[in-house]
Amino acid sequence: MEAHLRKAIVLLSGGLDSATVLAIAKNEGMEITTLSFDYGQRHRFELDATERIADSFNVVNQVVMKIDLRAIGGSALTTDTIDVPKHNQDDDRFQGESSSIPVTYVPARNTIFLSFSLALAEVIGANDIYIGVNAVDYSGYPDCRPEFINAFERLANLATKVGVENNHRDQPALRIHAPLLNLTKSQIIRCGIELGVEYRLTHSCYDPDPESGNACGLCDACVLRRKGFKQAGVPDPTQYVSD
Amino acid sequence: MEAHLRKAIVLLSGGLDSATVLAIAKNEGMEITTLSFDYGQRHRFELDATERIADSFNVVNQVVMKIDLRAIGGSALTTDTIDVPKHNQDDDRFQGESSSIPVTYVPARNTIFLSFSLALAEVIGANDIYIGVNAVDYSGYPDCRPEFINAFERLANLATKVGVENNHRDQPALRIHAPLLNLTKSQIIRCGIELGVEYRLTHSCYDPDPESGNACGLCDACVLRRKGFKQAGVPDPTQYVSD
Repeated sequence: MEAHLRKAIVLLSGGLDSATVLAIAKNEGMEITTLSFDYGQRHRFELDATERIADSFNVVNQVVMKIDLRAIGGSALTTDTIDVPKHNQDDDRFQGESSSIPVTYVPARNTIFLSFSLALAEVIGANDIYIGVNAVDYSGYPDCRPEFINAFERLANLATKVGVENNHRDQPALRIHAPLLNLTKSQIIRCGIELGVEYRLTHSCYDPDPESGNACGLCDACVLRRKGFKQAGVPDPTQYVSD
Repeated sequence: MEAHLRKAIVLLSGGLDSATVLAIAKNEGMEITTLSFDYGQRHRFELDATERIADSFNVVNQVVMKIDLRAIGGSALTTDTIDVPKHNQDDDRFQGESSSIPVTYVPARNTIFLSFSLALAEVIGANDIYIGVNAVDYSGYPDCRPEFINAFERLANLATKVGVENNHRDQPALRIHAPLLNLTKSQIIRCGIELGVEYRLTHSCYDPDPESGNACGLCDACVLRRKGFKQAGVPDPTQYVSD
């Protein structure tokens, strides 16, 4: 008799959010393949973190794809010429709605990542794709909104064999899961702690110390992360440069 | 005073269709950047052809992105273990509708290619993306249908700065142009001849001679191409192995 676990792809960046998504997918009984990208990030700490996190959840199938986003450029995260913006810790710009798009936005990144996960899903026969986008903290990113996720799910079911061959069903064959979409950072952290995420393994900082990999504590990602742990009432396991 | 050419991305594969699309975009007055992919094709003749074609239309900005589709596998075009299907020339399977999906289908390929073109469009400030998909000859490919193109255009305008910032307008800011969508191969060829496409520069064969690059004459792509020239009443400039 065959096992009947549903196969799923989890997009894993090495950060706090996608580690939590992996825990959620695991908790939903999925047989998981993680997909990470070596896309010309400024540092490799992110990619090292994906392996540690996937290992911690006993994920056997870990796929890393090398893609050349640096050739496209256009973002502070993949070029060397734009400075990563720094904040002091009391900066409140991440609270509430914002219509401005941060310079750390990578053009079409989530579209590209979801496209590859769709190809991989089709090849391995997975019908579920999990992505850690979040509309609360990242309201400035166009591709972190529910409209975007819905539009991609629609596209996915038009673009693929499995979608087309099952288009008579009530439910689309391919599902894009974005379980963090409407959670705050502290809610994400509390959910992850519940599901056994070891947050010390995750890496969020945009601008880590090049030797130690310790987090700068001042970039957008660090500020959000620190505030999240504080608001969740959970000790922050992150190693900061300034500690 | 600034020049007011609209910037456009043309996805260029080296084949007959995308060469024709380039000619169409040029004819519509666009300032063109071509985008081609080095995606682990079995042979490099395709990529060599993209350069010749872009040069023949005096395209200055030619971007080639290296991506790792081979790591995903799942198609006769990117793996070495599935044979490319061969036909005799009188085979009519490409005429009319077909619900079967050919083994030469690359999972989510057009979704991936369009995603990268979207990223590039955003970075260079292009609002128009041209792609040579065709629903007539390739009715078996899910991502060669008008529904797919429309769904991607919708996604594109939700996924990007320019789409979001102009969502109050009547027309979407980003347009996906698929001018060959409803043309037969012979109509495509006649259109291209009109617009100065040098078809001898293009490469369609899935399984060319490894030394000369000459076309096999028997694979799906060759059969379609031969028939197209015949029906268009235009001499076929292709070098076939059997010639």
